[in-house]
Amino acid sequence: MPAGSFLVLDGLDGTGKSTQCRRLAEWLRARGRTVVECIDPGGTDVGLKLREILLHGRELKISPRTEALLFCASRAELVEQVIRPALARGEFVISDRYLLANVVYHGHAGGLDPADIWALERVGTGGVMPSLTLLLDLPVSDAWQRRGRDADRMESRGRDYAERVRQGFLTEAAASPDDTIVIDASGDADAVFAKLQAVVQKSFQV
Amino acid sequence: MPAGSFLVLDGLDGTGKSTQCRRLAEWLRARGRTVVECIDPGGTDVGLKLREILLHGRELKISPRTEALLFCASRAELVEQVIRPALARGEFVISDRYLLANVVYHGHAGGLDPADIWALERVGTGGVMPSLTLLLDLPVSDAWQRRGRDADRMESRGRDYAERVRQGFLTEAAASPDDTIVIDASGDADAVFAKLQAVVQKSFQV
Repeated sequence: MPAGSFLVLDGLDGTGKSTQCRRLAEWLRARGRTVVECIDPGGTDVGLKLREILLHGRELKISPRTEALLFCASRAELVEQVIRPALARGEFVISDRYLLANVVYHGHAGGLDPADIWALERVGTGGVMPSLTLLLDLPVSDAWQRRGRDADRMESRGRDYAERVRQGFLTEAAASPDDTIVIDASGDADAVFAKLQAVVQKSFQV
Repeated sequence: MPAGSFLVLDGLDGTGKSTQCRRLAEWLRARGRTVVECIDPGGTDVGLKLREILLHGRELKISPRTEALLFCASRAELVEQVIRPALARGEFVISDRYLLANVVYHGHAGGLDPADIWALERVGTGGVMPSLTLLLDLPVSDAWQRRGRDADRMESRGRDYAERVRQGFLTEAAASPDDTIVIDASGDADAVFAKLQAVVQKSFQV
């Protein structure tokens, strides 16, 4: 196992992941940790090309199976170039999404078998798994209200899809309670941050 | 299982796959078959974007694992948009390469576990497997001499790599003698075509 700590924030878009990732990183740095922040998909040259295809290529016809593989490919490169080296150096990695989103969006919500997506992830990540995933949970309507920008390719799939995503996240969290902690993301950013701080402090002895 | 017939030609570059695919397609059409020709990677809009990244993006840093996933993604879309529908219509599909190349280039020659690549393929193809794969075999030096054009990203990896590719193909063929037939591709194009014709005639009752 790598020497560093690997924290993932995941959940529906609009639950505040990006903001909280940034705040956690700043807080950890203030406590003397070396923190590498990343965003999945993305974070490498090929990952950015794939992110462009995945999130903005609406004119492209892409099947759910292909899409799942492209997310997985982008993540494989992120692991190779960014996450694995940082963990090997003993650093703290915070990722805005990771493989759970893939299992949920393409499996639980997208109609593929979640076990198939886990099989892809096993190969794609080469076994680099988060130390802990924090699942920011909000009712879909609240998340959508907060989102405050145009829906991208993944988010434009409608309300039923988003509900299946939320339930998929909760199902996976319930199946792995030691690896995935559900955080109620209602309330303002400071209140949510305080909850995240408490969990991170306890889990990582920060 | 789909109603149609699915024939794949694979082997080192320079063994004459593309030429023989075209000739087989013409011959089958002359015998009244409806034939769909495809090339993997490629054959769809997203597949072409990926092909561009994979074969010509030499400035891009791409790990073997990511590369394997991108080939798999391109193939997943080819299956979805082209191969599966054609087979469902009872047509004859001829593909210039398919999943075996992935197993061999990234597994046997590229250092990943071939079992991992097979696991990816199982998900990526959704179970659409060739009825028969014809492996065009040549010594590396002969294949390279025939190639007669600049090496692309995959081909530029040197002699040892190409030798491992050739041996990987032969190992996989030996492991699945019912699914994969080795064809000696030395001799001129007409002689090789005659061998292919004989096998296809027998295997597909053409």
